[in-house]
Amino acid sequence: MNKNGMLIVISGFSGVGKGTAVKKLVEKYGYSLSVSATTRAPRVGEVDGVDYHFKTVEEFQNLIDYNGFIEWAQYVENYYGTPKKFVEDELAKGNNVILEIEVQGAMHIKEQYPDAVLIFITAPDADTLKERLEGRGTEDAKVIAKRLKRAYEEIDDMVQYDYLVVNDDLDVCVDDIHSVICAESFRSTRNNDYMRNMKTELETIRKDY
Amino acid sequence: MNKNGMLIVISGFSGVGKGTAVKKLVEKYGYSLSVSATTRAPRVGEVDGVDYHFKTVEEFQNLIDYNGFIEWAQYVENYYGTPKKFVEDELAKGNNVILEIEVQGAMHIKEQYPDAVLIFITAPDADTLKERLEGRGTEDAKVIAKRLKRAYEEIDDMVQYDYLVVNDDLDVCVDDIHSVICAESFRSTRNNDYMRNMKTELETIRKDY
Repeated sequence: MNKNGMLIVISGFSGVGKGTAVKKLVEKYGYSLSVSATTRAPRVGEVDGVDYHFKTVEEFQNLIDYNGFIEWAQYVENYYGTPKKFVEDELAKGNNVILEIEVQGAMHIKEQYPDAVLIFITAPDADTLKERLEGRGTEDAKVIAKRLKRAYEEIDDMVQYDYLVVNDDLDVCVDDIHSVICAESFRSTRNNDYMRNMKTELETIRKDY
Repeated sequence: MNKNGMLIVISGFSGVGKGTAVKKLVEKYGYSLSVSATTRAPRVGEVDGVDYHFKTVEEFQNLIDYNGFIEWAQYVENYYGTPKKFVEDELAKGNNVILEIEVQGAMHIKEQYPDAVLIFITAPDADTLKERLEGRGTEDAKVIAKRLKRAYEEIDDMVQYDYLVVNDDLDVCVDDIHSVICAESFRSTRNNDYMRNMKTELETIRKDY
């Protein structure tokens, strides 16, 4: 069956716990994780190559010039991008690659990789989302209001995603995403080689009868 | 999330073990199973309402006249059909209904229920399929040749199915089909109600901030 690696794009509301879910997916199921490049300064505890590939503006610009990103964007003062080489190498090896990215980046990726599987992690309901944002305890009301506004706007983008997975219980959420990825590998449109081979084999075998 | 029942259509090569897989799916995961109606005589051990709904030709004809079948067909002397009431009642209750049916019937169902999930159970390869057909020990070479020819022809229909699931190990196959059904319930296109509710809720909540 399907031997090709799949590109799995994961987005989700701010505060929904997508970072933790992605980390667990990689640990539990061994997916390859794409690490973004950025020009922003590392925060305390962040490791180059693990949290981000930290680049100077010149290095980043050079990668843009040489078509080194699947997609890139500028937020405030900083650049963020998805390095192309890692993703394409992993897909070529037949590995499934997970990419955690915000909505607009996800749309750019879908344009270039129509076979990519787009998963949006969401909360059971809006109250839960609000509680999680408040529960962090690190943000003031203004920041929470901004995130809720953004979540409200992102609802209209959810329909562009193939799947919506609720993060109510983290372990269930992670297993649900894994189910989605397994199921996608069974899609008939991803198994043309299998069908072609089966047809050739059956043609030979039935002639012997 | 998705509260609607889904119609799961399962087909597969003769000899691939789809009957056993469907039986196990129903036992293990509690899916509702649609039982076909037929005018053929019960075989030894077959139970009315479990294996088939056994009908007279008059009863069957009456059901056709009253639009009682999702699809029906005549093979040799006998009629076979999928009763509509059971399927629609179960879907309305939010239950997932499994329907085991051959390729042409599956296509008719997809026309009437575009949201149905079509799964084709296949063998790891053509040699395995041949061995399974031979291994039954009940069929002569002529029958096996006929089934292999039919399998060869059915390859071209596989692409009409949403998913191809290999039956190599029965338990794996059953769990794979269950994964597919779970994953389908996460499709954004099946969760419009959830998105609509979430939008309304977020609209209210963010106003309070």
